[in-house]
Amino acid sequence: MKIAVLGGDGFCGWPTALHLSDQGHDVHVIDNLSRRWIDAELGVQSLTPMDSIQERVRIWKKVTGRTIEFHKIDLAKQYDRLRLWLSEERPDAIIHFAEQRAAPYSMKSDSHKVYTVDNNVRGTHNLLAAMAETGIDAHLVHLGTMGVYGYSSVGAPIPEGYLDVEIDTPSGKKGQEILYPTKPGSVYHMTKSLDQILFQFYAQNDGLRITDLHQGIVWGTHTEQTKRHEQLINRFDYDGDYGTVLNRFLIQAAIGYPLTVHGTGGQTRAFIHIQDTVRCIELALGDAPERGDRVRIFNQMTETRRVRDLAELVAKLSGAEIAYLPNPRKEAAENDLIVDNKQFLALGLEPTTLAEGLLEEVVEVAKRYEHRIDRKRIPAVSGWTKDLAARAEKDPEGNRIRSVS
Amino acid sequence: MKIAVLGGDGFCGWPTALHLSDQGHDVHVIDNLSRRWIDAELGVQSLTPMDSIQERVRIWKKVTGRTIEFHKIDLAKQYDRLRLWLSEERPDAIIHFAEQRAAPYSMKSDSHKVYTVDNNVRGTHNLLAAMAETGIDAHLVHLGTMGVYGYSSVGAPIPEGYLDVEIDTPSGKKGQEILYPTKPGSVYHMTKSLDQILFQFYAQNDGLRITDLHQGIVWGTHTEQTKRHEQLINRFDYDGDYGTVLNRFLIQAAIGYPLTVHGTGGQTRAFIHIQDTVRCIELALGDAPERGDRVRIFNQMTETRRVRDLAELVAKLSGAEIAYLPNPRKEAAENDLIVDNKQFLALGLEPTTLAEGLLEEVVEVAKRYEHRIDRKRIPAVSGWTKDLAARAEKDPEGNRIRSVS
Ligand SMILES: NC(=O)c1ccc[n+]([C@@H]2O[C@H](COP(=O)([O-])OP(=O)(O)OC[C@H]3O[C@@H](n4cnc5c(N)ncnc54)[C@H](O)[C@@H]3O)[C@@H](O)[C@H]2O)c1
Ligand SMILES: NC(=O)c1ccc[n+]([C@@H]2O[C@H](COP(=O)([O-])OP(=O)(O)OC[C@H]3O[C@@H](n4cnc5c(N)ncnc54)[C@H](O)[C@@H]3O)[C@@H](O)[C@H]2O)c1
Repeated sequence: MKIAVLGGDGFCGWPTALHLSDQGHDVHVIDNLSRRWIDAELGVQSLTPMDSIQERVRIWKKVTGRTIEFHKIDLAKQYDRLRLWLSEERPDAIIHFAEQRAAPYSMKSDSHKVYTVDNNVRGTHNLLAAMAETGIDAHLVHLGTMGVYGYSSVGAPIPEGYLDVEIDTPSGKKGQEILYPTKPGSVYHMTKSLDQILFQFYAQNDGLRITDLHQGIVWGTHTEQTKRHEQLINRFDYDGDYGTVLNRFLIQAAIGYPLTVHGTGGQTRAFIHIQDTVRCIELALGDAPERGDRVRIFNQMTETRRVRDLAELVAKLSGAEIAYLPNPRKEAAENDLIVDNKQFLALGLEPTTLAEGLLEEVVEVAKRYEHRIDRKRIPAVSGWTKDLAARAEKDPEGNRIRSVS
Repeated sequence: MKIAVLGGDGFCGWPTALHLSDQGHDVHVIDNLSRRWIDAELGVQSLTPMDSIQERVRIWKKVTGRTIEFHKIDLAKQYDRLRLWLSEERPDAIIHFAEQRAAPYSMKSDSHKVYTVDNNVRGTHNLLAAMAETGIDAHLVHLGTMGVYGYSSVGAPIPEGYLDVEIDTPSGKKGQEILYPTKPGSVYHMTKSLDQILFQFYAQNDGLRITDLHQGIVWGTHTEQTKRHEQLINRFDYDGDYGTVLNRFLIQAAIGYPLTVHGTGGQTRAFIHIQDTVRCIELALGDAPERGDRVRIFNQMTETRRVRDLAELVAKLSGAEIAYLPNPRKEAAENDLIVDNKQFLALGLEPTTLAEGLLEEVVEVAKRYEHRIDRKRIPAVSGWTKDLAARAEKDPEGNRIRSVS
């Protein structure tokens, strides 16, 4: 298949491009390199030394003989270029990772909110409009987030995208299937809720074939392909904006810093290993919807953990301590999260668990690149509202810990 | 109150600005005049001779002594200007009409789809981000559409925004209130579905006070204020993109042309008179939500009619014939639409009905300005898909009728 990997220079996109290229597909990476610009804006860098996309693609060719083409296109700002590329190249499948993906970054200031909405909504809509316009019949696989669901408020497991409900009507109760009601918790998550409605419309009006993967937090660094050469290594974000909670714990452990838990740590999150991410995408590609089908939605996660349990797991592996800080996010202190992921299991996914995989991360990533850690970048300071931002900034314990670094 | 009327140069915005100014409010119109540029793009103009906003505001001052200020700001493209204006002027209420509002225009081509999404989503999100950032406590009243609902599929009346459902949980059925599941039928309607999610988020995260008015098709031209001077007259769109079905019937009747019904005419639509629109906005302003409340949603319509019944009503008043053409929209041939509008009735709205008000439109608007009608502009040719567009273009009956004109 000819496959376009949009956002193929990013954390999930790069190993996906390698995995699919390795399987013999003709892979094209499209990326505007905005994530590298954001690194520059924030003054942060990947823990792992990451080469340019052009260099990485060159190494891949050297190691495997396979070609991955790179095209610099901005999905949000270069509609005409995107449309031209699609109509000339006519890919069989398009995997869409190309969005601003950090919740804290999306809440940093009004201009970050505006950027995130503009970039993500325009990018996704431009893609859909161009697919409809060119009439290509590619299968679109999009990376969504578990965050569109909010949390399972009524105690039932979160189903895969659609929910069966009963409605009172004049002629008695009637059953109906609806998109799971969305309750996004940040501007970033909100853009994924908007994406869902875009997909629903274009699937219905234009018969586009779309799969939306509601993904949990991705952890892990290496996949079978990224391990093949040092210069193929994946990025590892640990800063307060892009570093996920687990990555920040790993880094704190590596430098002998207490693991900073926000709030009570009672927030439950869903996780998946990067190796399973690339495998899920392969599985989703092999199970494409037909023209006219509704959007296919999968929950792409393999386990859920409370943040404090995760901290304990890392503490046990590394000997680190745990420190509790105020939460800059507007969210419930404690929440449950029960998630259905039957579809991927049925297709043959065999999950890597945190219990199995974490030690490798501690040793082969965090410890190995310890000398590249900039301690000042670890704390999360983006507040969800001005009050919460001020509190995170002023908090004495936060300062104490920051001053340790 | 100091009230900002965003989109105050438009069909609903202008009479609203006059109505509120007449009641003694300090009214500021914000508009980028894009609707006038679209007139130029399409080569169409209002049936009624409409002066510039600057001139209309001057006449209003002359007639009433009241000042309406006009500010040319693009909500979607001038975030910083918008934010500055809000932080300096600190309005008590903001009424948001400033969106591209024609479904056929939104479906004309890929670039019209892209424009509609960019303009509407960015505009609304910029406004919300600026309100949160400046910390002003204005009540935001937004004009949504009945079209976010799709149609009442299970035969229950469409409630005002929220729906009570029952969900199966491990501990039995549980009731929950959700946003009515959205099923927009065009890119334009889709942007209003996206707006809803933006509102939900900013009400929840930032405590913004928001009312969303899901409006039916607005008909009628005059309000008490627009009648006071010839140069205060409201716009009247009759072209295939911006002219609503009723306006096109009126124009066809005025020139002795058959009333063109798309499909069987079994589609049911909701309607409201422009005088009731301005009154509803006054009522919604008087009934503002508190900080922390969920978004308040009203159905702003007063009656529903099947398109063919509407055609018959106009035919009876004018002696016109009816012609049936293929439908360029992707929609069910026949549908019911039962809508709840208890909230506005409870607040004291006394609707103007089509049966009462239509004759005035036939005589005082359509007949009076008959000499300004450009017959070539009446047919609706935007197709919802390429196939439907080709059919509308080629259809022999459509051509016969177009060639009559
Ligand atoms: N990493 C996670 O834990 C996680 C979890 C759930 C969902 N996701 C989703 O998976 C996708 C990929 O995430 P990631 O972690 O790889 O993010 P990332 O930031 O590392 O990669 C995103 C890539 O997209 C590119 N991009 C962004 N906007 C673009 C535009 N307008 N045009 C072209 N390219 C653009 C960036 O330059 C970057 O290379 C995102 O959509 C994200 O929301 C990620
Ligand atoms: N007319 C109807 O039948 C109807 C029915 C339901 C809902 N509505 C909604 O009511 C609102 C007003 O409708 P209308 O019929 O008056 O439309 P209109 O096109 O006559 O007026 C909209 C006004 O907003 C302005 N505008 C558009 N984008 C802007 C931007 N980015 N920045 C600043 N100004 C901008 C335009 O120049 C125009 O003057 C719309 O949101 C529409 O969706 C209208």
